[in-house]
Amino acid sequence: MREKLLGSIEAGGTKFVVAVADFDFNVKEITQFSTTTPEETLENVINFFKQFELASIGIGSFGPVDVNIESKTYGHVLNTPKANWSGFDFLGTLKRTFDIPMYFTTDVNASAYGEYIKGSARNANSVVYFTLGTGVGGGALQDGQFISGIAHAEMGHATVIAHPEDTYDGGCPFHSNHCFEGLAAGPTLEGRTGIKGEKLPRDHKVFDYISYYAGQIAFNTFVNMAPEKIVFGGSVLQESDMPKVRAYFKQFNNGYVATPDLEELIVRPSIENNGSATIGNFGLAVRALKE
Amino acid sequence: MREKLLGSIEAGGTKFVVAVADFDFNVKEITQFSTTTPEETLENVINFFKQFELASIGIGSFGPVDVNIESKTYGHVLNTPKANWSGFDFLGTLKRTFDIPMYFTTDVNASAYGEYIKGSARNANSVVYFTLGTGVGGGALQDGQFISGIAHAEMGHATVIAHPEDTYDGGCPFHSNHCFEGLAAGPTLEGRTGIKGEKLPRDHKVFDYISYYAGQIAFNTFVNMAPEKIVFGGSVLQESDMPKVRAYFKQFNNGYVATPDLEELIVRPSIENNGSATIGNFGLAVRALKE
Repeated sequence: MREKLLGSIEAGGTKFVVAVADFDFNVKEITQFSTTTPEETLENVINFFKQFELASIGIGSFGPVDVNIESKTYGHVLNTPKANWSGFDFLGTLKRTFDIPMYFTTDVNASAYGEYIKGSARNANSVVYFTLGTGVGGGALQDGQFISGIAHAEMGHATVIAHPEDTYDGGCPFHSNHCFEGLAAGPTLEGRTGIKGEKLPRDHKVFDYISYYAGQIAFNTFVNMAPEKIVFGGSVLQESDMPKVRAYFKQFNNGYVATPDLEELIVRPSIENNGSATIGNFGLAVRALKE
Repeated sequence: MREKLLGSIEAGGTKFVVAVADFDFNVKEITQFSTTTPEETLENVINFFKQFELASIGIGSFGPVDVNIESKTYGHVLNTPKANWSGFDFLGTLKRTFDIPMYFTTDVNASAYGEYIKGSARNANSVVYFTLGTGVGGGALQDGQFISGIAHAEMGHATVIAHPEDTYDGGCPFHSNHCFEGLAAGPTLEGRTGIKGEKLPRDHKVFDYISYYAGQIAFNTFVNMAPEKIVFGGSVLQESDMPKVRAYFKQFNNGYVATPDLEELIVRPSIENNGSATIGNFGLAVRALKE
């Protein structure tokens, strides 16, 4: 008999990454494909997993998705601007082929969980993980539970005070220059400068602006939830920007609330090759077996 | 043998309210006195409780306090501008007289717990409770657990975008006009108008400003934690202001995130006579017996 494996689906708006691993999270096979229609994309997912004998699957999906296990539309994609995906029964489609336990959450919650069990927050009881990429999102865990009342978090859309010199009118179609994503997502770099983000020098003032928003959000996160770790993933900010983020946290706090050493509190992910979500999905697949 | 009673200490910066109740939370006796030195104040607390046979005590204290049960200074008051109280061993002082289980948390967490078990959020699995009074604070619960990583929340100090017409330079000594408390606490009413808050007509534009901040914070709370209920306690906002708060929530959301009916989501406390914290303390006293 073959050893049963854990499955991971990192479902992004532009690409899907699917992988299988053993129970020590050693990746046995990993592949990716473009996100097209839900039917075609899920067919690719199913054909990949059919090659293996799976114990369970962890799924981290782009959102919004229904993560409320008691809801009639649990596991569905909710209203999304992404063509054809609104209302798609993501989890149900998988369940029709694979009658095994599955854990369904957001992509950023999966990343948060990965960093919580194996990454920068592996020795912490609480973490909030943000990703700054094409979009901005966040996920929080305390004592192993996601902080998520009746829906998943949408932390990228919290309001931020604008940097005094930042006149950009914002990249969020809903919140223009009022929200974190509208001012700090990757496309805002080119939106402000006309130059692609990856071609901008790291000392360009736009990275100072982004650090200002990240530092502000980190401060708000600390006064709201006081996590032991605040992790900034994604490609917009890099390790070399973290000192600026910490400096702005300190400026916003202004000596009010006692914190751990900010070099310990505010960190980058430590799982390599952008693998936080995949590792998190494997961990959530293990949880699905137990719950 | 006398029936054992539950004790409640609502420890405010200006007054203490102490009470005892039976296990159905029927108050048997309640009294209050001014907050003076820690020694004198706790002597009053102890003399009150010595009249009864207590099973356990729930304590909701002004902050900052150390609520981390694994910390060496658990149960102490942390650095506070309030004279003589910094570093005071609040819980230890009580424990030296009463060798019974105690639950120690913030005043606003106690109020959140009261509304969670017996008030506006009694049928909800998650709640965030804000109080707008002399100061502004917030406490959150999900599945019965406080959201509190390595410290208690300080939600009153999260940043807010200023109302476009509100030129007040803020009442928070640490964050001037950058934080919720600095723009929405009771003293800001007189700070803006020169007229005591309770004498201002409810249609004065300052209440529109405060509602703007409350609506913004409620929106941020929803995208961060998605609680089933967001309760606004304290005397600064009243029931008649809630429609404005909901309208600003809607403005900040701008159709992005799906929410329950805002009349169900954003509410006032339902425990009468300002008793949320006392009821919460009794509930926490019961928890202390079980934990």
